Amino acid sequence: MKNQPLHYIDELFEFLRIPSVSAKKEHTEDCRKAAHWLIEKLKLAGITHMELVETEGNPIIYAEYFQDSSYPTVLVYGHYDVQPPEPLDLWKSPPFEPEIRQERIYARGACDDKGQLYMHVKAIEELLNENALRCNLKILIEGEEEIGSNSLERFVIANKEKLRADVVLVSDTSLISNECPSITIGLRGLCYLEVEVTGPNRDLHSGIYGGAVPNPINLLCEMIASLHDQDNRITIPCFYDDVAILSEEEQQEIAKVPFELVEYKKSLDLHDIHGEKGYNTIERTSIRPTLDVNGIWGGYIGEGAKTVIPSKAFAKISMRLVPDQDPDKITKLFTKHFQAIAPSSVSVKVTPHHGGVPVVVSTNTNAYRAASSAFEKCWGKTPIASREGGSIPIVALFKHTLGIDTLLMGFGLDEDAIHSPNESYGVFNFYKGIETIVAFYKEYGANSLK
Amino acid sequence: MKNQPLHYIDELFEFLRIPSVSAKKEHTEDCRKAAHWLIEKLKLAGITHMELVETEGNPIIYAEYFQDSSYPTVLVYGHYDVQPPEPLDLWKSPPFEPEIRQERIYARGACDDKGQLYMHVKAIEELLNENALRCNLKILIEGEEEIGSNSLERFVIANKEKLRADVVLVSDTSLISNECPSITIGLRGLCYLEVEVTGPNRDLHSGIYGGAVPNPINLLCEMIASLHDQDNRITIPCFYDDVAILSEEEQQEIAKVPFELVEYKKSLDLHDIHGEKGYNTIERTSIRPTLDVNGIWGGYIGEGAKTVIPSKAFAKISMRLVPDQDPDKITKLFTKHFQAIAPSSVSVKVTPHHGGVPVVVSTNTNAYRAASSAFEKCWGKTPIASREGGSIPIVALFKHTLGIDTLLMGFGLDEDAIHSPNESYGVFNFYKGIETIVAFYKEYGANSLK
Repeated sequence: MKNQPLHYIDELFEFLRIPSVSAKKEHTEDCRKAAHWLIEKLKLAGITHMELVETEGNPIIYAEYFQDSSYPTVLVYGHYDVQPPEPLDLWKSPPFEPEIRQERIYARGACDDKGQLYMHVKAIEELLNENALRCNLKILIEGEEEIGSNSLERFVIANKEKLRADVVLVSDTSLISNECPSITIGLRGLCYLEVEVTGPNRDLHSGIYGGAVPNPINLLCEMIASLHDQDNRITIPCFYDDVAILSEEEQQEIAKVPFELVEYKKSLDLHDIHGEKGYNTIERTSIRPTLDVNGIWGGYIGEGAKTVIPSKAFAKISMRLVPDQDPDKITKLFTKHFQAIAPSSVSVKVTPHHGGVPVVVSTNTNAYRAASSAFEKCWGKTPIASREGGSIPIVALFKHTLGIDTLLMGFGLDEDAIHSPNESYGVFNFYKGIETIVAFYKEYGANSLK
Repeated sequence: MKNQPLHYIDELFEFLRIPSVSAKKEHTEDCRKAAHWLIEKLKLAGITHMELVETEGNPIIYAEYFQDSSYPTVLVYGHYDVQPPEPLDLWKSPPFEPEIRQERIYARGACDDKGQLYMHVKAIEELLNENALRCNLKILIEGEEEIGSNSLERFVIANKEKLRADVVLVSDTSLISNECPSITIGLRGLCYLEVEVTGPNRDLHSGIYGGAVPNPINLLCEMIASLHDQDNRITIPCFYDDVAILSEEEQQEIAKVPFELVEYKKSLDLHDIHGEKGYNTIERTSIRPTLDVNGIWGGYIGEGAKTVIPSKAFAKISMRLVPDQDPDKITKLFTKHFQAIAPSSVSVKVTPHHGGVPVVVSTNTNAYRAASSAFEKCWGKTPIASREGGSIPIVALFKHTLGIDTLLMGFGLDEDAIHSPNESYGVFNFYKGIETIVAFYKEYGANSLK
């Protein structure tokens, strides 16, 4: 690899030390701090026009670098907020004290998305220093991606003209592997809800009342269990109605993705995999919808034993959606079904958190071709067009509100463990990503003159 | 009521202010403090021989008051430890800052068992002051009742001779109501376990892995749900094998217990009750075994949303047992069954907490007749012989190890909400309890000379 200035890593470490957890109110000021830090770095990279946009939540950064109307315009998107780091006791080094172990950067946000976002800052700086940028730039960075991008959605809807561009460029996805580079063309959508089941009006002694009153934990478990059938299909009526059937070409592209079940199980210490009957692991994590409990709690969860029947039990439940499922429709279907299956002895409250629309983007664009060439040049291989299981709801937003396709050129790996303890990002991927982004701009600028 | 010295309540408040929570290591010193406080009060009551017995856990108090070998000997049992007070936010006044509202004492332990235990201290003091005690006394007070009485069990086994007595007297149960006084003759047993379900070796991003890996929360819910069938019967093989069939006489005694379903549902704000098909509420909470989840946790349970598939999910599960079920046997049956129903994709760990043997005591004893007379004298009614749903494992211990029957003369009420937030104890019941205990000793001493 050509260029690996050490201070890039020092700067990224500064960024990673800011605990910009958007899900927690106590970190509101840290989110603001992260935004200000980024503005300074964009200034140093050579960007001149910058705006810090106040919102009801965390501020949005909007920046521009205009050169020539004959150049294509790239809208770069990223986010400076991160997932909560819990459970803290599983981190080998503290989540906001980054360190490198075996050529990997360990910290919350190392990959998602601070590491990947910062590659863009440095790629732009290199291009401007070389005077090699033949594109106009618009840069849009938010601080609420991990909690639903509510402020960004309002900003995009209110600024359609300002955000006009030829392509959106995002690095917030993963490669299949460093040996098998890929460009993401599909993302699942998301529907996230919180449920509350209430039995008796107060916590009760399980000896005095046990056997005669509804225990909300037992009943929540029964309700959750009933959401899958024996084939691990989701039982919510009409849930699969809008799932698109793949073309033969699409099926063939998915079949290209290399996969080793033995390795997969080994890397997760799993005796066995678990999923919808009739589909393999790649399909289950890309083209099929899911329903997972992401959190559950109720009753006494401290040390020792307490013989209580709690008044309430709670769960956070999310569904990954695929084209053409609609999060609002699925939210309604879930809510109706969950209330319908509740026994008459309990009451149920369902609160939607946030959703995201699933997307598939075209490979038949100048931007995709430029990205493919950039990979060939930097990685020596044609990238596979892959579908990822995660969700980046703003991709659908850009498509539906601005009419712009997004190029998902991400450099993460599965082993980065984003959203988990010990999130990391390969030093190789960080530098190689910058190199590939630079190559993309050169290729795209040269072939997209208007 | 005759005698209601106000300082009795002041003293009880001192006792209630000591947060002697045995389930939490941080309260070890508070438990010791509660024991020392009690010894002081027993001394002031007139008890001369006292021992503070060190154990692996919290100290045991053993005291004696010997008068004459022709007198019957009563072994008084109680416990100074209390349940954890959580959830704290539901308490109207802090759990360890007792206060009286509407003639009720609110505090953790107000009834269970500090309030009920302290009635004995004051009753003994009154009897000794009047020189009216015609019994020998042995007093045994422990600080681990809420966590399984391990130290007490060892102490009782090692001190069979020392503890020899004619009857054990315990106030740690409830009356049916103040209008319908009762003496408890049956207690359910207990089997309490903690389960841990492990899926992948680390927390995973639910987008990348969702649909293909075992989610331990979803699977724990399925396993828990399968522990009851459609009739709310427990599905563990052989679980009901040892449940004794009631005699007609026993059935008739249970049918005497007054019960108002409308009132019951109203007091708990329940749309509907929930329990084993074929049994009514009184039966479900006294002569039928149960299985309740007392706590469940896993994944992200903080504010907002986190799209995680956790590595592990946990639950605390307890079963109330009835004669002649054996807690050790049920623990083995549960463990075997729970491991058998686990899908091959997860691993399961089951850790037993503590158990207790169910008991039924005879009404055909001098002690029961004396208690019945004391109730008639102080309450103007013959008490019903009732079965309670809770567990006091040491009752079985006293029977099997010492061969002594226990008289369960408790003065609590359902509304005391023991083990729940806002535990309370009626001021009426506290003073009336002392009066009834005094009357019992007089009756028993007069009719049980050897």
